[in-house]
Amino acid sequence: MKIQISDLRQLILSSLRKKYAEEDAQSMTEVLLFGQLSGKTSHGIVRLFVGNSSILSQNPTSKPQITTQSELSSIITGYGNPGMLVGQIAVKEVIQIAKKKGIGLVGTNGTNTSSGCLSYYLEKIALENLIGIIMAQSPPSTPAYGGIEPLFGTNPISFGIPSKPRPLIFDMATSAISFGAMLKAKTLNQKLPDNVAIDKHGNPTTDPEEAMKGATLPFDNSYKGAGLAMMVEILSGLWTGADFSGLNNKGGWGNLFIAFNPKIFMSENEFKDKVSLLLEKMRSSKTKTGEKVRIPGERTLDTRDASLKCGWIEIEDHLFQELQNTGVK
Amino acid sequence: MKIQISDLRQLILSSLRKKYAEEDAQSMTEVLLFGQLSGKTSHGIVRLFVGNSSILSQNPTSKPQITTQSELSSIITGYGNPGMLVGQIAVKEVIQIAKKKGIGLVGTNGTNTSSGCLSYYLEKIALENLIGIIMAQSPPSTPAYGGIEPLFGTNPISFGIPSKPRPLIFDMATSAISFGAMLKAKTLNQKLPDNVAIDKHGNPTTDPEEAMKGATLPFDNSYKGAGLAMMVEILSGLWTGADFSGLNNKGGWGNLFIAFNPKIFMSENEFKDKVSLLLEKMRSSKTKTGEKVRIPGERTLDTRDASLKCGWIEIEDHLFQELQNTGVK
Repeated sequence: MKIQISDLRQLILSSLRKKYAEEDAQSMTEVLLFGQLSGKTSHGIVRLFVGNSSILSQNPTSKPQITTQSELSSIITGYGNPGMLVGQIAVKEVIQIAKKKGIGLVGTNGTNTSSGCLSYYLEKIALENLIGIIMAQSPPSTPAYGGIEPLFGTNPISFGIPSKPRPLIFDMATSAISFGAMLKAKTLNQKLPDNVAIDKHGNPTTDPEEAMKGATLPFDNSYKGAGLAMMVEILSGLWTGADFSGLNNKGGWGNLFIAFNPKIFMSENEFKDKVSLLLEKMRSSKTKTGEKVRIPGERTLDTRDASLKCGWIEIEDHLFQELQNTGVK
Repeated sequence: MKIQISDLRQLILSSLRKKYAEEDAQSMTEVLLFGQLSGKTSHGIVRLFVGNSSILSQNPTSKPQITTQSELSSIITGYGNPGMLVGQIAVKEVIQIAKKKGIGLVGTNGTNTSSGCLSYYLEKIALENLIGIIMAQSPPSTPAYGGIEPLFGTNPISFGIPSKPRPLIFDMATSAISFGAMLKAKTLNQKLPDNVAIDKHGNPTTDPEEAMKGATLPFDNSYKGAGLAMMVEILSGLWTGADFSGLNNKGGWGNLFIAFNPKIFMSENEFKDKVSLLLEKMRSSKTKTGEKVRIPGERTLDTRDASLKCGWIEIEDHLFQELQNTGVK
């Protein structure tokens, strides 16, 4: 069905208000809407209800708090609050530190849900004329290279780069398939692509159900993809005090937000001009088919902007139904 | 032929002394020896002589200098000095900043040769109980995803993590094949693996000569591999004032050295214990064949240590010959 974005926003808010303070509900609504409007719907409103790690099934024991701090860094502990709420606090904090000091590092632990679309946070950072790198760690789903036992999360590593006329954003999972995409395939009764998952015996599978009992492969199915997954596990999980590789205890999921002020090496303007020049060169670079090279992240931001301009968006009927149910409960 | 490592060191030193100051020759010898002793021979003594980007063909116009500086960062300009010399200066600088401030960032530009095996620098950083990330950019060899025109270097991104009993090091090119491996295949008249390179028309090729006129593919041959290559190009090339994607002018190759003190989030001991725990879990994790999972970087350090213990190493006769020739010229 089609729904006006302003109505969708109100519905999400009304669902979240049942459980969270007004300010927190507002904050999470923005992250959820970004996923929904930009076409990354596996990070959209479905995250409100679906599974153990849904936003509405969380039972926070306290407000998120800064539990470790230095001049250049903070750890924010979530105390069971949703990743999207803690993510919003973390992104504000890292921007503030990097604006003041040139470099900022903010880790989070103690959440048990997705932080949402990392592109949302990276756009925010890059619009402040800062370079952003975010790594997000989640419970084990991907083995080490050569192994069949899940040790690392789907563990995205993502970058936001100030540019003209708008930021460049590159967001990738280090697993061959994201948990969201697997969940979607299962819900729609679809097969997975080849070479993205194994069953619990280590055999290739295209059945999402079998894959969920088994493991997602690292991307590239190589020591490279697996090594990057491991580094995200260490830097954003282990180092932030979160659980890692099924170890630690009640540390929750971890995230690492890094921001660099380009000014420490060159003026903001020079940096943005040069990035813009590079992107122009990419766009006009030769291809075999004559088709234009696509710039990472462009489709996501274009889709979001088109949705906002249109003012209406298509959502699945059952999601609308669930939203209404939770909103008025 | 077999040669004593102490003799090999003297030969390398004597070659380098013809062109560089004693201290600089010593410094580069260590990086070259690491490549040679650890089995990464494409980063070993071959780099002294082979090609335009060989160490002995450089004509530096000045000593390397810090040209931009903040409390947390430096840019070191190489003025045509070899990457391995500038790399040694950069790694010292980044360690010093991160020890004092918690985080350090050092960029380099103005070199026109490889910085050598990044594992060498990462081990140094991690042995100082710091987390290291190094990105190294070089002239275009890899296209954007969907393109056939080289825009990015082979662009490794590599990590060094303090652990017990020794550091964990993960070093990977973002291209499907490194320039060194391609050079080696050409020299030995061997074919390249499938799916690592294209000719100048964009067709797959396994001929190293055709590949050198064409392009190396990004690893995973996907938007992910290409996106990471682009990020290394931007962060370690564009941002440091080096040339990027065939743009800029006389900025040379770029590198970015990042060091984080784990202490900003948890004690060094807790960090190292946890990394060591994760590695144990990886080692003992299930595989389909029963073979043990390999830890990234272990083979490199094991090979280096075994070479040092043995005291002798095998080198190709023609390299020995060239070394002797350059040493006594």
